[in-house]
Amino acid sequence: MTEPADDDAATPSRRGGYRKGTERRAQILDEMIRMVAEQGVDASSLRSVADALGITHAALRHYFPSRDELLLAVYREHEVREQGAPERMKSAIGDMRESAARNRAVPGLVQLYTTLSADAVQEGHPATREFMRDRFTRLRADLAELIRRDQAAGRIRDDLDAEDLASLSIAVSDGLQVQWLLDPDAVDGERVLRLLERIVPTGGTTAPGAPA
Amino acid sequence: MTEPADDDAATPSRRGGYRKGTERRAQILDEMIRMVAEQGVDASSLRSVADALGITHAALRHYFPSRDELLLAVYREHEVREQGAPERMKSAIGDMRESAARNRAVPGLVQLYTTLSADAVQEGHPATREFMRDRFTRLRADLAELIRRDQAAGRIRDDLDAEDLASLSIAVSDGLQVQWLLDPDAVDGERVLRLLERIVPTGGTTAPGAPA
Repeated sequence: MTEPADDDAATPSRRGGYRKGTERRAQILDEMIRMVAEQGVDASSLRSVADALGITHAALRHYFPSRDELLLAVYREHEVREQGAPERMKSAIGDMRESAARNRAVPGLVQLYTTLSADAVQEGHPATREFMRDRFTRLRADLAELIRRDQAAGRIRDDLDAEDLASLSIAVSDGLQVQWLLDPDAVDGERVLRLLERIVPTGGTTAPGAPA
Repeated sequence: MTEPADDDAATPSRRGGYRKGTERRAQILDEMIRMVAEQGVDASSLRSVADALGITHAALRHYFPSRDELLLAVYREHEVREQGAPERMKSAIGDMRESAARNRAVPGLVQLYTTLSADAVQEGHPATREFMRDRFTRLRADLAELIRRDQAAGRIRDDLDAEDLASLSIAVSDGLQVQWLLDPDAVDGERVLRLLERIVPTGGTTAPGAPA
């Protein structure tokens, strides 16, 4: 279907316009998550998305003024749905492993994440940079909190810096996704994350230099 | 300086043409490494590189037919220079840490690496995908070999899978670069890689479930 630019959302004084705009935005994101999951992020130029949705380029730009904003909205929506998963917040590295396993079922979303990471470290993508920096800050803090709980319970040795171990665990998970996407037969991300769980030492403080 | 398209390299039968072509190619790569190091990879569109070098777009395309091929050549050249560094091949994770420290001195090259990673996992960049897949394969094999030497010498516990530990170490290094580029005050990549060295258990096999 082809339709004119959707002016309703721009004029919320019109009856139902605001709600209609919100629904349309959600509908675009639904379709985008499906497209990215199936075809990867390359299919997500504003023009090809507008074509696939059967709306005008102008209508799409009304909701998402740039490709960066569309990609960020898609990833945020994915994160919101992911946070509803029941396994969240049990143990530090185990949670990461389960989340990574779910992500790997949808290579398009891993591609999207990799694209956002690469955009974020380049000039010219300020919104992506801010989103990714804030995301890492939040993720490190959440994971460090779980690590401190594991340390209090004797599951992780308590002389390890929780923030640094959080950075390390996130880095392993992110880095593995790229290796796995490029060579799924050679790299088993879940097995490597299990190796990380296995080498993080348990129990109380061990004096430096003490035998393992 | 502005000059006509350099036809010499295309017709090596002309005296000195081949050598001149090789020199010109090296000169372009020199300039590109400088530009990427200083301004990041965004400055590296074929047109802006040609402008900066004072050569025509056509002349540049003679040496590097696409942006992907130019970026790959720049990264390969950087790797060749890096491999000349004296610290190579001492110990598995220590080497990675030193290499990462050198890379961090040149944020533009870390941006370039992140761009190549993101391109490699998308459709439409077959040469980049092949280069990065081969690079990871080689790097995992080299690192696994060093890990096996460390295991033979009792520096790493010998019941850990050397290939998986290699994947893990590369992933940590790659993932940390992104976190560090986005938030250098919050993430100290070298300190986190030292944490990895510290938690990888030393000595002979420990039975599963044995106290650390």
